[in-house]
Amino acid sequence: MIVGGGFGGLYAARQLKGAAVDVTLIDRRNFHLFQPLLYQVATGGLSPGEIASPLRAVLSRQRNVEVLLGEVVDLDVEGRRAILRDGEAAYDQLVLATGATDHYFGHDQWERLAPGLKTVEDATEIRSRVLLAFERAERESDPAARRALLNFVIVGAGATGVELAGALGEIANDTLRHDFRHINPAEAGILLLEGTGRVLPSYPPELSAKAEKQLIALGVRTRHNALVTNIDSDGVTLESAGKTEHIAARTVLWAAGVRASGLGQVLAQRTGARLDRAGRVLVEPDLSVPGPPEIHVIGDLANFSHQTGAPLPGVAPVAMQQGRYVARLIRKRLVAPTVSAGGGLRGEPAPFHYFNKGSLATIGRNRAVADFGFLRVAGFPAWFLWVFVHLMYLVEFENRMLVFVEWVYNYITRNRGARLITGQ
Amino acid sequence: MIVGGGFGGLYAARQLKGAAVDVTLIDRRNFHLFQPLLYQVATGGLSPGEIASPLRAVLSRQRNVEVLLGEVVDLDVEGRRAILRDGEAAYDQLVLATGATDHYFGHDQWERLAPGLKTVEDATEIRSRVLLAFERAERESDPAARRALLNFVIVGAGATGVELAGALGEIANDTLRHDFRHINPAEAGILLLEGTGRVLPSYPPELSAKAEKQLIALGVRTRHNALVTNIDSDGVTLESAGKTEHIAARTVLWAAGVRASGLGQVLAQRTGARLDRAGRVLVEPDLSVPGPPEIHVIGDLANFSHQTGAPLPGVAPVAMQQGRYVARLIRKRLVAPTVSAGGGLRGEPAPFHYFNKGSLATIGRNRAVADFGFLRVAGFPAWFLWVFVHLMYLVEFENRMLVFVEWVYNYITRNRGARLITGQ
Repeated sequence: MIVGGGFGGLYAARQLKGAAVDVTLIDRRNFHLFQPLLYQVATGGLSPGEIASPLRAVLSRQRNVEVLLGEVVDLDVEGRRAILRDGEAAYDQLVLATGATDHYFGHDQWERLAPGLKTVEDATEIRSRVLLAFERAERESDPAARRALLNFVIVGAGATGVELAGALGEIANDTLRHDFRHINPAEAGILLLEGTGRVLPSYPPELSAKAEKQLIALGVRTRHNALVTNIDSDGVTLESAGKTEHIAARTVLWAAGVRASGLGQVLAQRTGARLDRAGRVLVEPDLSVPGPPEIHVIGDLANFSHQTGAPLPGVAPVAMQQGRYVARLIRKRLVAPTVSAGGGLRGEPAPFHYFNKGSLATIGRNRAVADFGFLRVAGFPAWFLWVFVHLMYLVEFENRMLVFVEWVYNYITRNRGARLITGQ
Repeated sequence: MIVGGGFGGLYAARQLKGAAVDVTLIDRRNFHLFQPLLYQVATGGLSPGEIASPLRAVLSRQRNVEVLLGEVVDLDVEGRRAILRDGEAAYDQLVLATGATDHYFGHDQWERLAPGLKTVEDATEIRSRVLLAFERAERESDPAARRALLNFVIVGAGATGVELAGALGEIANDTLRHDFRHINPAEAGILLLEGTGRVLPSYPPELSAKAEKQLIALGVRTRHNALVTNIDSDGVTLESAGKTEHIAARTVLWAAGVRASGLGQVLAQRTGARLDRAGRVLVEPDLSVPGPPEIHVIGDLANFSHQTGAPLPGVAPVAMQQGRYVARLIRKRLVAPTVSAGGGLRGEPAPFHYFNKGSLATIGRNRAVADFGFLRVAGFPAWFLWVFVHLMYLVEFENRMLVFVEWVYNYITRNRGARLITGQ
């Protein structure tokens, strides 16, 4: 049983193709979401359907997989059953890959005011808010109110925050350039707040500096060492260099942190597994948890610190490689004599090892930074690489051609056709 | 001032390109919707962004047009002002083109149970309901409950109902063929109910008969002369040939009738204009209303009966031609000496004349019917024509290439990639 159809769960399921196992993949949603491109939905460049693939369609020809739409709310570890919101299902081997959600560090009331970017609904909500802000500014005659409508604050300058800020800069400067009669969209104030001393803190300092330059070229202002102390419907209050400041902004977006899915807590209660402060499960070198050998945790839900001492980052390649690793482990158990009657592993498997192919973050049109360890690239070459890599991964989910066409079209026309204000 | 950015309003605005007028286009939504393809969103073939174009983008280069996001709730006819929900705006010439909504003939409580197909939100709601029904059937062990989940009832066999039924047939027989393990999607019961004696009652009887055959080939059952007397969460109660019957179905879709937008009633109260039973405004031969000569009504909001004695159908070509006609009328007023100081027309303009290029309805993959008056086509040639015509119209809204790619892809793979269950 695999819980979660993100990169980790899906790659685990595919790696079990042809194996003599019955795979049940459980997800609350009926589609796999290509989350690295979610910011493009939030900014009107792509439609949700273009970065999502129905799980059943992706796995329809893999006859040993059954997809189940459902939510796992509890685990019966002794009885080897997953308790769903509306039923239950038995397992022999369990892979938990339910990912992460936004983390407001104790300020859950901010969620409504500053949505994060985790689901398709988040993305369309952000899209509506951003577009509505421009619409309202167009009709607002009071200069201060108009200013607040044209101020966009993004909290957190990790990859998601930087990509959102870059895309907003592009919208303001290019996409909407000829669209309004009473405002100049290029006058939008896009402010990127970061708690540490530089943007993209997980990248080498030289790439952070280049990313910062690229953001500034797009009209994005950044603020380092800034601590958000309050968010309300008027804007953001922050502390920076010992001073308190209020920034009037009607649109605030949250990219400051994630917390592991609640299933980690369930697992901790049922097995005694330990969690880190972000709710991630501290996993063994083989991605299992102490105790029941048939349970593995992968992707954003896992804290794997055995390789570098620090947890591996919550990015798709880690989840994919962990999914494949666990699937191979399960395959080995099918043939190895080291498997106990209970299905647990007795031998000592080779520990999981993350092969870091590099990190990429894109910043609007034509700009990006790429870190391959031995090689650090910024600007157009990094951007081109980013496009190439993302298309290659999308290939596997059958959406490549469509996204490619849309990208080429948007690139040439500087348009973003999916600028829909939908919902209530 | 043009109220409504559908086919009528948008074509009126475009026809005024370069004219010495200031055009204000008001719409509640920020996008033009290519409604003839909405059923493809409802059935997972296309994403909303692919059949919608931001109004500002479509009109951004037309410098005499200002787009205003807002809802007109009342009219001050004497003062020539439109009252918006949040403000007001003055006009010299007014074109009302706010279209139509679903009509439940006094049973508004059915709306929740049997959604119609008028908005993007309707389409994604129907998409979610249809897909969820298959998902629940996959997990349902009780045969009767499973049957009810796999029964889909479509009320109304006009073009929308027929296209929805055909697309559902295709989903059940092709798209989902390999997706489930416990149910056979081809066993879905798709029932198309029609109050009159044949499907597509506005088409010639021979094409109705052919459409019926094509529907049956897709596994759709039809019922003529059927009157729906009740809809509840269990299904549909209908009277047919004097007998009452209950059909257990968890998914019911409404395509039985439309009512003109509420702005028609406002206009009637303010000017004494007369409405028909569907709430449409009875217009003069020049699409004006009795009384104020500066007000025109076009598209689905208008009942134009001067040409054939019956109202023109509520289809895009009528709205487009009426939009162009009114725009030309306004252009003439700019130069003609017959214009009064008040902006009203004194002369006798040539009445509006609808040039009927023909009607097309598609029925799943490869099948359609086309009525050109002198020529009636069914099957693949009609379907090919349907594809061609719709792509040609989409051209103008910059989405053609994308939709074309998606269609070719879906056609070859029999897939529908936008099968997302979204929302609450």
